[in-house]
Amino acid sequence: MKLPSHGSNPSYLYKALELPMPEQIIDFSVNLNPFGPPMKIKDNWSAWFPLIEDYPDPYGKELTELISELEDVDTGNIMLGNGAAELISLILNYLSGKHIGIVQPSFSEYEKASRANHCDVTYIHLPKDDWGLDVETLSMQLDSLDALFLCNPNNPTGINYSTTALLDMLKLCEKHHCYLIVDEAFLDFAEDGQSLSTFIKESDYLIILRSLTKMYAIAGLRLGFLMTNQKLLDKLQSMQPHWNVNALALEAGKEALKDKDYVYQTKQYIQKERDRMMYELKKLGYLLSDSMVNFYLLRDPSFKNQSPLIMYLLKKGIVPRHTKNYPGLDGRWLRFAIRQQEENDVLLEALKAWKQEI
Amino acid sequence: MKLPSHGSNPSYLYKALELPMPEQIIDFSVNLNPFGPPMKIKDNWSAWFPLIEDYPDPYGKELTELISELEDVDTGNIMLGNGAAELISLILNYLSGKHIGIVQPSFSEYEKASRANHCDVTYIHLPKDDWGLDVETLSMQLDSLDALFLCNPNNPTGINYSTTALLDMLKLCEKHHCYLIVDEAFLDFAEDGQSLSTFIKESDYLIILRSLTKMYAIAGLRLGFLMTNQKLLDKLQSMQPHWNVNALALEAGKEALKDKDYVYQTKQYIQKERDRMMYELKKLGYLLSDSMVNFYLLRDPSFKNQSPLIMYLLKKGIVPRHTKNYPGLDGRWLRFAIRQQEENDVLLEALKAWKQEI
Repeated sequence: MKLPSHGSNPSYLYKALELPMPEQIIDFSVNLNPFGPPMKIKDNWSAWFPLIEDYPDPYGKELTELISELEDVDTGNIMLGNGAAELISLILNYLSGKHIGIVQPSFSEYEKASRANHCDVTYIHLPKDDWGLDVETLSMQLDSLDALFLCNPNNPTGINYSTTALLDMLKLCEKHHCYLIVDEAFLDFAEDGQSLSTFIKESDYLIILRSLTKMYAIAGLRLGFLMTNQKLLDKLQSMQPHWNVNALALEAGKEALKDKDYVYQTKQYIQKERDRMMYELKKLGYLLSDSMVNFYLLRDPSFKNQSPLIMYLLKKGIVPRHTKNYPGLDGRWLRFAIRQQEENDVLLEALKAWKQEI
Repeated sequence: MKLPSHGSNPSYLYKALELPMPEQIIDFSVNLNPFGPPMKIKDNWSAWFPLIEDYPDPYGKELTELISELEDVDTGNIMLGNGAAELISLILNYLSGKHIGIVQPSFSEYEKASRANHCDVTYIHLPKDDWGLDVETLSMQLDSLDALFLCNPNNPTGINYSTTALLDMLKLCEKHHCYLIVDEAFLDFAEDGQSLSTFIKESDYLIILRSLTKMYAIAGLRLGFLMTNQKLLDKLQSMQPHWNVNALALEAGKEALKDKDYVYQTKQYIQKERDRMMYELKKLGYLLSDSMVNFYLLRDPSFKNQSPLIMYLLKKGIVPRHTKNYPGLDGRWLRFAIRQQEENDVLLEALKAWKQEI
């Protein structure tokens, strides 16, 4: 039984587990803004129809300029991607055959793209079930690495590292001539989320990945961007397919980034709702990760393997994200997104009922 | 002065030539169906809005199954791409460092992606200003090649090679253990267009590229597919980023492929309109390629370099495709798309006026 390697598209999970999929499901396996895309995108949707006909701007000039303004980073340090996933593949194509470190547990595409590009892969494990960034321990494992992937805030734990620790990591990586690839896909959700983008100019070894599909709930359109020094950016751009970002993603991205209030409101909601869920779930006896974003890890300490709980929830139409393909978690935890209040209540009720039944 | 490497997005061409862009332009540099996307796509556009929110099916299962049915090729031999451009990059990532032949003149992305992936590139030139596929001559140049790109019908000439000649090429390539990559992006427009897809099963060396963005005028959405033997397909798929095709392209692709009448009507129109244009343009003394599709090459034999004609047309808001970056053409020709009748008439009038003025 091979489980899907990502959340979302729950029909594949039901199929792998040979379970019939209920008609009504709530998908907690996908980490997107529970309020959907900003209203401006919906308002403009019909007017954007003619954009499907002609080729998109291959340089995404207007969107790149807007990002440059918002991030205070030169346009020459920014490139757009067909989702952050495309940019991960592109980096690994560039680093083909090199030695890649991955701070684990983390997003599985880093390893998949590394192996597809004949790289050696070394896992650098965070402390078990604590997952703090202990720079001193990590420092001893950087020796032969050409690049290190670090996800902040981390997917799947939701833990947000301090800028001090991240800058220490960057200094260490620079000393070892090792690229530090910081994936900030979920940074928009973190209360005190601070990007490393201001350090792009000062470093030859920093690569930052960002996603617009999570905060703005436009995963179906695909949109991400990368920031790094101009020399490396030029090389990566020369390897990128022409017209890689579709015309709708370019337009939606511009509308989304202008809507600062949407981000503020979402963050407020996520914080409040996450605090509520954590309080209730801890009261029920579950263990939780110290998440600062829109998802968290949970485990029932009565079971080593959480498979019985997965099956129980799936039968009720509640879809968790399994963690069998996260090195260091290996199925001992489940990941859940923060969704709308009524939906989170359904999850709470189910997890309460589970505790009463076992 | 570096001209843009592709048609479409004419603002970049005006900018490169330091010309102000007129308010009204007709873009003959982009080779798409002049009638725009099929009506069903427009009809469904609003209903598809919710698709932007969730991740697309990473396997594009339904669209792949539909292609399988229409092409009579197993689903295990088909993979979808974020436009054919993504698939070209992917093939070259797989063939990184190898020796690539390109039958020239042809689409410039083959060379760009080859060089980006550290391949050696050899041009295999078609006979000058005739561009027929002379298999015997080509056969002498295959020796050390690992793969050969051949575009049929060819972009930019519009010439459609015979299936016999293509199968002879395939046999030769097989003998040399050289992949034959046939780009059929414009096949849908050719009257007697015949895909090599039926030979996928029999060959270890055939790769076919297809595009849905031309016939169905959905270039803004990005959608193409690749057909090859399962072993190679599995390898290519393992290198492809997850969720590479956006959710709108998947839906639009399904609607488009079901609309066979749209293809039939378009082909009828293109043939009639191309015949009319060719007749009129030849009468005016222009030289033309023997195109069988929705674009053609044209040159004014009074000039070696067509730059004065480019400037003349651009000032009138008529945008041709320059050919400076097509090896073997080197700017001696211009490419024009077949557009709607009134638009083609504007071009005819301008080319008539040009002949009177010089």
